[in-house]
Parts: sequence; structure tokens; C-alpha cells
Amino acid sequence: MDYMLGVDIGTTSTKAVLYDMKGKVIAYANAGYKLYQDVPDMAEEDPDDILDAVVSVMGQTIQKSKANPTEIKGVSFSCAMHSLILMDHDDQPLTRAITWADNRAAKYSEKLKNNGMGAEIYAKTGTPIHPMAPLSKILWLRNEKPELFKQAKKFIDLKTYIFFRLFGTYKMDYSMASATGMFNIFNLDWEPQALDLLKITRDQLPDLVEPTDKITGIDSRFGNLLGISADTPFIFGASDGVLSNLGVNAIDPGVVAVTIGTSGAVRVVVDKPVVDPDGKLFCYALTKDKWVVGGPVNNGGIVFRWVKDQLFAPERITAEQMQVSTYDILTQIAEKIPAGSDGLLFHPYLGGERAPIWNAYARGSYFGLTRKHTRAHMVRAALEGIVYNLYVVMLTIEKITGKPKSIQATGGFARSSLWRQLLADIFEQPVTIPESFESSCLGAAVLGMYALGYVDDLSAVKDMIGVTHVHQPNEKNFEVYRELLPIWIRLSEILEPEYKEIAEFQKRHSN
Amino acid sequence: MDYMLGVDIGTTSTKAVLYDMKGKVIAYANAGYKLYQDVPDMAEEDPDDILDAVVSVMGQTIQKSKANPTEIKGVSFSCAMHSLILMDHDDQPLTRAITWADNRAAKYSEKLKNNGMGAEIYAKTGTPIHPMAPLSKILWLRNEKPELFKQAKKFIDLKTYIFFRLFGTYKMDYSMASATGMFNIFNLDWEPQALDLLKITRDQLPDLVEPTDKITGIDSRFGNLLGISADTPFIFGASDGVLSNLGVNAIDPGVVAVTIGTSGAVRVVVDKPVVDPDGKLFCYALTKDKWVVGGPVNNGGIVFRWVKDQLFAPERITAEQMQVSTYDILTQIAEKIPAGSDGLLFHPYLGGERAPIWNAYARGSYFGLTRKHTRAHMVRAALEGIVYNLYVVMLTIEKITGKPKSIQATGGFARSSLWRQLLADIFEQPVTIPESFESSCLGAAVLGMYALGYVDDLSAVKDMIGVTHVHQPNEKNFEVYRELLPIWIRLSEILEPEYKEIAEFQKRHSN
Repeated sequence: MDYMLGVDIGTTSTKAVLYDMKGKVIAYANAGYKLYQDVPDMAEEDPDDILDAVVSVMGQTIQKSKANPTEIKGVSFSCAMHSLILMDHDDQPLTRAITWADNRAAKYSEKLKNNGMGAEIYAKTGTPIHPMAPLSKILWLRNEKPELFKQAKKFIDLKTYIFFRLFGTYKMDYSMASATGMFNIFNLDWEPQALDLLKITRDQLPDLVEPTDKITGIDSRFGNLLGISADTPFIFGASDGVLSNLGVNAIDPGVVAVTIGTSGAVRVVVDKPVVDPDGKLFCYALTKDKWVVGGPVNNGGIVFRWVKDQLFAPERITAEQMQVSTYDILTQIAEKIPAGSDGLLFHPYLGGERAPIWNAYARGSYFGLTRKHTRAHMVRAALEGIVYNLYVVMLTIEKITGKPKSIQATGGFARSSLWRQLLADIFEQPVTIPESFESSCLGAAVLGMYALGYVDDLSAVKDMIGVTHVHQPNEKNFEVYRELLPIWIRLSEILEPEYKEIAEFQKRHSN
Repeated sequence: MDYMLGVDIGTTSTKAVLYDMKGKVIAYANAGYKLYQDVPDMAEEDPDDILDAVVSVMGQTIQKSKANPTEIKGVSFSCAMHSLILMDHDDQPLTRAITWADNRAAKYSEKLKNNGMGAEIYAKTGTPIHPMAPLSKILWLRNEKPELFKQAKKFIDLKTYIFFRLFGTYKMDYSMASATGMFNIFNLDWEPQALDLLKITRDQLPDLVEPTDKITGIDSRFGNLLGISADTPFIFGASDGVLSNLGVNAIDPGVVAVTIGTSGAVRVVVDKPVVDPDGKLFCYALTKDKWVVGGPVNNGGIVFRWVKDQLFAPERITAEQMQVSTYDILTQIAEKIPAGSDGLLFHPYLGGERAPIWNAYARGSYFGLTRKHTRAHMVRAALEGIVYNLYVVMLTIEKITGKPKSIQATGGFARSSLWRQLLADIFEQPVTIPESFESSCLGAAVLGMYALGYVDDLSAVKDMIGVTHVHQPNEKNFEVYRELLPIWIRLSEILEPEYKEIAEFQKRHSN
């Protein structure tokens, strides 16, 4: 048999899945690592922890599969975006991997936004100006850790680090590069205006490769450990976000991928790079001629968790209810409340927000409370608010890509029929839940199959995934949402200027 | 001994208290009656139910006191404001008593506000343009119940009705008249512009008397029933709001009466009638040379009740906690949260609001939510929001009367030390809780004593009441509130234009 190994390097764990060339899962492994948060706003990981995890999950998967290593025709990679590692002149890391969740560059991204240069750079790079991006992080390091900045031979990301350790060469694919804020998405090269701003040179950045490019000659220590030969091609692959679109078969025009896990995202594939006049959408490469436009949101399932922990104390649960999870109970409670929560609106910005408002100061709010509203209304309103927010991201995308035709939905929330139906009703679109396991791993594997000629086209993915649920929009419900959405959106606009002052109060008085 | 009987005709019950001339309570009785709410927004009472209650509580009080009826030197009245009864040509009621809480005239008060005539009339009458006022109610009846309107010989209020039944004459004191919206507070007469608007004549209204005026010659049926002679003087008295100021000794300049029961109010006594340029304050007569300026709020303890019922389910209470009331538990919970609720703000408008915003569409909101906020924060924020709202009423009053010096606080909330301290901290004023029982009854009795020469001055009240608690503002807390109040006020302003649309959605979709 011929197999393809897909590896996804995530923020909390690395996953590896071995597939046959029809996309059937043969074996799977997963390994987590520590997130370092020594000071406020820090979110770092040890790159060697991740190297260990990558090698370990590859090895475990191969072992579990009992495949002959010669049957493994390729290994292809997915990776979390926006990480930054500084390498010294001995090719040793000067820093941990500073992840997308690290917020310490906030002051610098805000300055870029305010002085207008942010908008200029965004218009070339397609990466929203935000502390998540390596552009902001390098600016922060140059200003606040100049000694580190000066020692840096290379500014790389996690996937580049892994490939460097495996193959001894600094290479970054267009897809990962397109999420750095330093890569010109129109001419597929590092952007001089960004490099000038950061006072770095292009030789301090990795060489650029295509996501479908491959490399052979794995360091023998690792090759022996894994039992694979130096001939085995490693495909550079792409970022986890764009590969997830591929892995859920949301690569055709008008097919929207909506993900709600802890956070969430809305993404659509287009055939040319595009940017948003307001700088609120990203445009990241999947391949040279498939680009993913979308917006990431901070406030997904994490908001539901707050509702569970804060609005519902544990003692709320009766013995009978102990059989099912708290989340299921809350969903049952929310289901009894009519669509629109009797006019209670919730803005889910409990921890600032990226898309659609890109405001780190944003805070949550309930609006429209009457004595008739119960805690059950507050639960449903929270669920609806999370989806309204994703829908507003969709409205921004629509202006560039046109009206969507259907939605492929994934993430933890897709397990709940209430959430799936909410998505269909609020988006007014049919919602399909693909039967997809580790969609970024599958995306990486399919990209690898395409790179090696095992499939002719990325759309081969559609025969590899099944469908678990399909939801049609309910007319009665979406008419209610059509009445409420304009109010919700207008409230977002009028509340936005008020977030900064309350957020600063909270920061001043926190202990 | 000499005694004075104070009677307070309230919305839910009538109270009578017999006092000696030092203000000592000798006996007390109380009788409730039904509120009719046959259709939405209706709030009516049967005037003969109330007549029965008045006679009953007077009789019971006299009996309980074992006083010789000749020792009762006078009876003086307090009454809820804004009620309207139409009397036919046989002096029989054509309607029930339509109370202040009846909201069916909303369309007409809104029209008056919008066409500018409301502002003109308010500037002469000192009664905010609102469905509560008889001005709006008569306009509504003329338009929507023309057959009733045409049959009306007299348009009177509840106290006039009681006096009519007891003495056979239609008399209304300046104090009650000043809450009708038809009484010119500057020349102490019915206002022609109001009468023209309503197309009624002054002979359709009661004769005007001073609050200190008295009448004798009680109908012998009632005199016999009560065992009092026809010589016993009945003092017309005033409205419950202004008499409550008197009864809590808040009649000196700079002394503010703050009441929070189910609803609430902030009131200050001044020596001349004054109106607010924005029409948001009332100015009601206590006597000819004592006027009460203030604002009534809908959302007081009723909001706390919502928090208890909706945010905290009964099963939340442990066996140990069963010893104390839910309200006490919630107060204990709120006490553990720092002043300012870690930057969580609440606007308490669960059922529309009168002062300070006079917006029937107003709705409640939480703003500033983060994942750190717990239900306990939501409780404290609700309590704080209720008091912020009262404070904003105070700010409006201050513009007319100058800065307050101290607060006399009453109402159910005054039983909680947390609430009392909140009031001191948010108002930045010392707060005194008078030891006062049925302050409107006491106010009526003191007014009666003054009218009959038993005391030289209304300030005699200060020796009649004690003090139960005094709270000083806590500097650390009021500095926090000084930071939050401007944000809370600005939010009120930006949210206000948004209330109507959500309220209309809620009305459209309610069943």
C-alpha cells in the first residue's frame, strides 16, 4: 500500500495521521506541550519540546500503522500560524517560540495602525495589523529587547525550525510566510517596506518555497529513529488554517468554512490574493493559486465556558442531569428559549476580539434585558451572540468574494444540533458538517498527495470525507434574526468607542 | 391626651397611624386592595374598595388605641399621586381609579412631548409629561373613550373621591393638584393651556384648597361608624411623596431624601416652585412655600428581585444558608466583590424608566464583561447600577438646588448595610437612616399638627424621629465610583436611542 503522513503542529499539541491515498485513516498519534505564560500577555512554547513532539507522533503513527516504512510515500506539514523564533549565529534559538496568542507587541501594532503605515503594509501583505503577527513581534523585540534583536541571525517560525532541525536548511513556504505580515502576497516575496520598518534584511529571513515543494535527505539521526529512508520526500505544506479549509472540502467558490472551537474563524477560498479595504480580513496562501480570505475570532466556545462556569454554578445540576455533560444541559436549556432570546442581545467579547472588530479592549455585554428574561435566555443569547459575530465576519468577506452558497462547519460546537441549526438560521445557508478527523492533517496529506502526483487536483478531498449532518435554515427563525441583526450590528458600532476606557479601568484595578 | 391620626392612601394599601402630639406611635392599621390589570398596561383600583379601606383602618386604629374619640384632634391625609376618576352627573364614578402605574396613555404623552406642547405645559405645571399624569390620561380618554369623556361631570383623584364621600364636596389640595399636570405651580390655579388642550372647563375639576386647610362635618354614617364627632377637623393634607420628605425630616435646604423600595425616588425641598429646563424633574407642592423637586425611578428593588429570581435559582441556597433570606445571601455575595464590580456596569432599566431618562422603551444591560466576572459581580453591578441611576437623578436636581449636604434614606433597601454604604459612596455624602415608621403617615400627621397649631413649624418633625444608622462615604470606594460614573453616564446616553427598536421587537414577539 501507499501511505501519506500528515502532521499538524498546533498550539497545544502536535497530531500525526497516516492516510492511504484514498484518505482513509490508518493510524493516529498526538502529543501535547507546555505553554509558557511567565508574565502577563506572554504565550510561548519551547521549540525543542515541539520538535520532540513532532518526531514522537510521527514515530508512533508509523509504529501503530504497522506499515513498512517504504510504503510511506511522503510526509506533509500543517502548522499554527504567526509564531516567531530568533536564531543566533550558531543556529541555536535565542527565544522560545512566541505564539500567535502572545500579546506583548500590542503597543507596537496599535502604533502601526494609528500612524497609517499599518494600512500600507496590510495592503501588500494581507495580514491584519495585530500583536499576533511576527511583524509586530519583531518591532516589539527591536524596541524592548534590543540585545536579543542584535544577536539574531534569523527570524523564523516553528515549521521552519522543525525543517531546519530535520534538514539543516531554513525554508519557509508561501503559506506560512503569508501570515507573518512581512510577505507580499501579490509578488510572492518578502515585502521591502516591512523589512525597512523592522530594520532587518532578507537574508535574516528563511528562503521561500512553495507549499507543494518537497525536500529529501532527512538528518540520519531522525531518519533512523523513524525508520524512514533519506529518500522520503517531506512536503513543506501550509498553515493549519488554510489546510483546514482543504480538509473540510471548503475550497470551491462560495463554500464557507466556519469553525468554532475555543475560538473560531470564517474562511473562503479565492483564486487570487485580495485584501480588505478596512484591513479586517486576512488573505493567506494555500497554494500559489488558492488563497484563503477570512477572519479569526477570539470568542467562540470559550464564551460558552464562561456561561457554564459563571452563570451556572455546579450545584445547579441535579442527580438526574449528572448523566449528561453540563454543556449538554445548557444546550437543552437554551433550546427551550425561542430564536432571538426574546430580544436579548449579547456581544461575546469577553477577552477582546480579533475579527470582525479587531479591538483588544472589546468587552462583553448583554442588552435588552427585561424582567421576563431568565438565565436560560442569557445562555441562548450568548450562543446567538457568538454566531452573530461570525456572521458579521462573513458579511465583510462577502463584500470581496460575493454571497456564500453553503457552509462547511467544524469544531467542537458542531457536536451540538442547536449550534448547527443556529448557524444555518443566522447565516441563512445550508450547513454541512463533514465527517472529518483532524482536518488540518488531512489537508496537509491531500496537499502532499497533490505535490507528489497521487491526485490530480486538491478537489480529490471531496471523496475522502463524509457528511454527518446537514441543516437547512428555518424560515421562521431566520426572519427573527433578520430583525435582530441590524440592531446587534448597530450596537457593536456604538459600543466600540466605549471599550477602551472600561478595559483600562479593569487593567488599572486588577490585582 | 391629644392625638393626631395620619392616613396614607397608597397604591397597594392604606395605612393609618395614630400619633400623640410628640409623634409617638399609639396605634396602627393597614388594609390592602386589588389592582385591576384586565388588559395590558392597565393599572386600576376600585375607589369604593379604597373608601372601605380608609374607613376600616381609621376605625381599627382608633379602636386599638383605646383613645377616647374626643382626644382625636384631627385627621390628616397623604395619598398616592396621579390617580384619575371620572364622576358622572349623579356623582357616581364612571371609571375605576386609574393609577399612576397605568400606562395606556403612553401614545398621548409621547405626542405631547414630540409636538413641543408638552414642554410648554410642563414649564407651567412642573409635572413631567408622562402617561402617569392625569393630563395624559384625560387626553387618552377623550380620544379613545369619548362616550365616557362626554358623560364626565368631574375629573378627580382618589383623595378628592374619599373627601367627597366623607364630606359631600369636591376639593383638591395644591399638593395633589400639582401632580395632575393641569395645575400652574406659579400662580396656584388650574392652567388654562392644559384645560384648553383637554377641552375641559375648570368647573369639571375640584375646587382648590391648601394642604393645611381643614374641613368638618363628616357624613354622620361615617362619623358614627368611627365614633368621632362632626367637629373633628379633617386636614386635606398632601401627596405621599412630599409628605415622605417631611416624615423623614428632609425638608431643610441641601437635605436629600432617597427612597428605594420596589421603585425609588430622589427628592429635595425648596422654598419656591422651580422647573427643570429639560422637563425631567417634578416640582410638587408640600405647602405654599415648600416645594419638592425630584425624580421618580421605576427600577429599584424590583431589579434586585429579578437578580434573585433569574440569576439565582432557589436550589443555589444551601441548608446552612436557609437560616437567612435570599436577599441577605445575595447581599453577602455582593459584599465580597470590590466597589465597582471590577469594571462591570449595569443599567437597571428592566421595565422602562421614568427619571432620569423618561424612556418607556429603556431596557437593562450589562457592559464590560470579561471572563473574570462571576455571577456575584453581576449581583453587585446590579445594586450599583440602581444607585448610579438615582445619583444621575441627583445630578439633575443639583443643577437647580445646588450640591446636597446629606442624605436621608428610606425604603426596604435601607435594611441592608451594603446598600446604605453604596449610597454614601456613590453620592459621596453622609447617609442617615431615620428611625421612621410610615413616613408619609407621619408627614400627614405633622402637617395636621401644624395646620391646627399644635406645632409652630414643620421642622418639629426632627424631634419625632430617631436615627438608626449613619454611613460616611469611604474614600477608596468613591474614588472608584468617580472613575466609573462618567462611563456609565456616557453609556446611558449612547444606548438611549437604541431602546425603542429592541423594545418594539420584544412587544411584537411577545405572546
